[in-house]
Amino acid sequence: MAHDPSSTGDHIRFDGTALELLDQRLLPARQHTVRCITPQDVADAIRDMVVRGAPAIGISAAYGMSMAVSRGDDLRVAAETLKAARPTAVNLAWAVDKLLALPPEEIPAAARAIHTEDVRINRAIGDHGAQLLPDDARVLTHCNAGALATGGYGTALGVVRSAFAAGRLQRVYAGETRPYLQGARLTAWELDTDGIPCTLLTDSAAASLMAAGEVNAVVVGADRVAANGDVANKIGTLSLAVLAKHYGIPFYVAVPCSTLDAHTASGAAIPIEQRDATEVRGFGEVRWAADVDVVNPAFDVTPAELVTAWITEDGLWQPAEGQDTFGPV
Amino acid sequence: MAHDPSSTGDHIRFDGTALELLDQRLLPARQHTVRCITPQDVADAIRDMVVRGAPAIGISAAYGMSMAVSRGDDLRVAAETLKAARPTAVNLAWAVDKLLALPPEEIPAAARAIHTEDVRINRAIGDHGAQLLPDDARVLTHCNAGALATGGYGTALGVVRSAFAAGRLQRVYAGETRPYLQGARLTAWELDTDGIPCTLLTDSAAASLMAAGEVNAVVVGADRVAANGDVANKIGTLSLAVLAKHYGIPFYVAVPCSTLDAHTASGAAIPIEQRDATEVRGFGEVRWAADVDVVNPAFDVTPAELVTAWITEDGLWQPAEGQDTFGPV
Repeated sequence: MAHDPSSTGDHIRFDGTALELLDQRLLPARQHTVRCITPQDVADAIRDMVVRGAPAIGISAAYGMSMAVSRGDDLRVAAETLKAARPTAVNLAWAVDKLLALPPEEIPAAARAIHTEDVRINRAIGDHGAQLLPDDARVLTHCNAGALATGGYGTALGVVRSAFAAGRLQRVYAGETRPYLQGARLTAWELDTDGIPCTLLTDSAAASLMAAGEVNAVVVGADRVAANGDVANKIGTLSLAVLAKHYGIPFYVAVPCSTLDAHTASGAAIPIEQRDATEVRGFGEVRWAADVDVVNPAFDVTPAELVTAWITEDGLWQPAEGQDTFGPV
Repeated sequence: MAHDPSSTGDHIRFDGTALELLDQRLLPARQHTVRCITPQDVADAIRDMVVRGAPAIGISAAYGMSMAVSRGDDLRVAAETLKAARPTAVNLAWAVDKLLALPPEEIPAAARAIHTEDVRINRAIGDHGAQLLPDDARVLTHCNAGALATGGYGTALGVVRSAFAAGRLQRVYAGETRPYLQGARLTAWELDTDGIPCTLLTDSAAASLMAAGEVNAVVVGADRVAANGDVANKIGTLSLAVLAKHYGIPFYVAVPCSTLDAHTASGAAIPIEQRDATEVRGFGEVRWAADVDVVNPAFDVTPAELVTAWITEDGLWQPAEGQDTFGPV
């Protein structure tokens, strides 16, 4: 894992009984594994952000369902426990409901298939997305939609990896992504480890880079895409979308089809998780703010009209009426 | 100081020989004073951000010049040392050059006058600005343009204080202002101590608050305003200005006239300080990012067309041709 973050699934390992999750709260300083042996353990790990990233929590929850089968747990209870862990990413409910609909004996193999299939999906997203980028791509990304957020390879960082492999990536600009600092801790480390040129910046420095012409594409992942194309993603995504529009820079959302939620009409209906004030008053054990009032939404909603294209494993997606239609890039 | 941040000048005290500066790097956790007895000490304190904020560093540098007189130092050398401490804020050079043009024996009194006059100026800015705000003002601000950044009362927070006194302030939203966290450490603490309703947020959460209609004015300070009205201010200001335009929210810049730089034609000519990578890789003694490449501009430039009004002690300012013309709000 330490030497190749793009590799498949080393940060999510399941031996049929226990799920071992690389603790993403401690990266890159420490590589520590959290061991889960019950669906409740998995739900706790998801809620506490040991594992995060929409596809990665879907995969982890799938293994939680596999555990429930081998333990003889009530599958409906396990499903509800897992789905309640975090509200915004639709992949979590998607994976759990998909497995719950199967005969129990088929769940373990189907859970494993969700994991391995995710890597194939990400490579397809990457290859579609890379074709959209200019030859001298200078990509701004946000949060971590990378190998660590998925089964491997990444969605937004899958596009980056495919562009780098094709020789058309000049640089990635990684926003640090306060308050949880997934950009600083995970994306910058993932790309640096893979030898992909990456520059870290505070989230609020993105505007000046765009104004200076340093960014020619924005690529982000998503936690849920509504039927009309509205995108729920990490807090700060909306800001980048508005800036990209102002500066005439294309804004791409890279997602597996499992992130498209046909049952949610628009972004207004997507539940936005509010997280604890302590995340904003400091970081980890460090506190720098006084005990002041805080607002800490974990996600925001970018309206469809600010999105240049939604990149899926099947090609570009069209929202609303055309939502079942995919085509090659 | 601890019990009334709006009070005059307790964070900058000069007894004719020594300048005592409240160390703003340690607030709000600790109240520690740094003692300066030479102009070089003052320059070091400015460079190292013991004292920060355009008016406050101008005042501190003025006392540095006063020191140089009583010590019998070469005044031109002292002036150059002080002016070189930080490049972007024009108030620093303004204060030093103003004193250097005087007979040496007049410098100490003139330095003190710059300090006391700054508080009067800020109250006038506050009173002009408060009249521009709606009756249920929900003001987003950035960084700290408060009592701590000035001789007292504040520029942007002067507007906030005057609006609060007039009963028209509903709430202040304070962006935390990475990487130095002046919003989280100074603004939130300053307002909370004064009993002014304040909510802290990460810089990238501003867009979602604006989209939800939670913000009806943005008020910021500035480090330099060019002759055409372009505004250099803390990194992240440009992002808020673009967002404010997108969401139809007025964007105000509150500055003393000493921040208006008639000798700089436009923002393109304003020097932007680049600060150390370690500020972005962590905070203080804490490091959370790997040793990755970083870009860390301390300021950005907001073009004049994104500014609704420039609020000075003399009323609203008009850039370019009309730059010497002021009028009441």
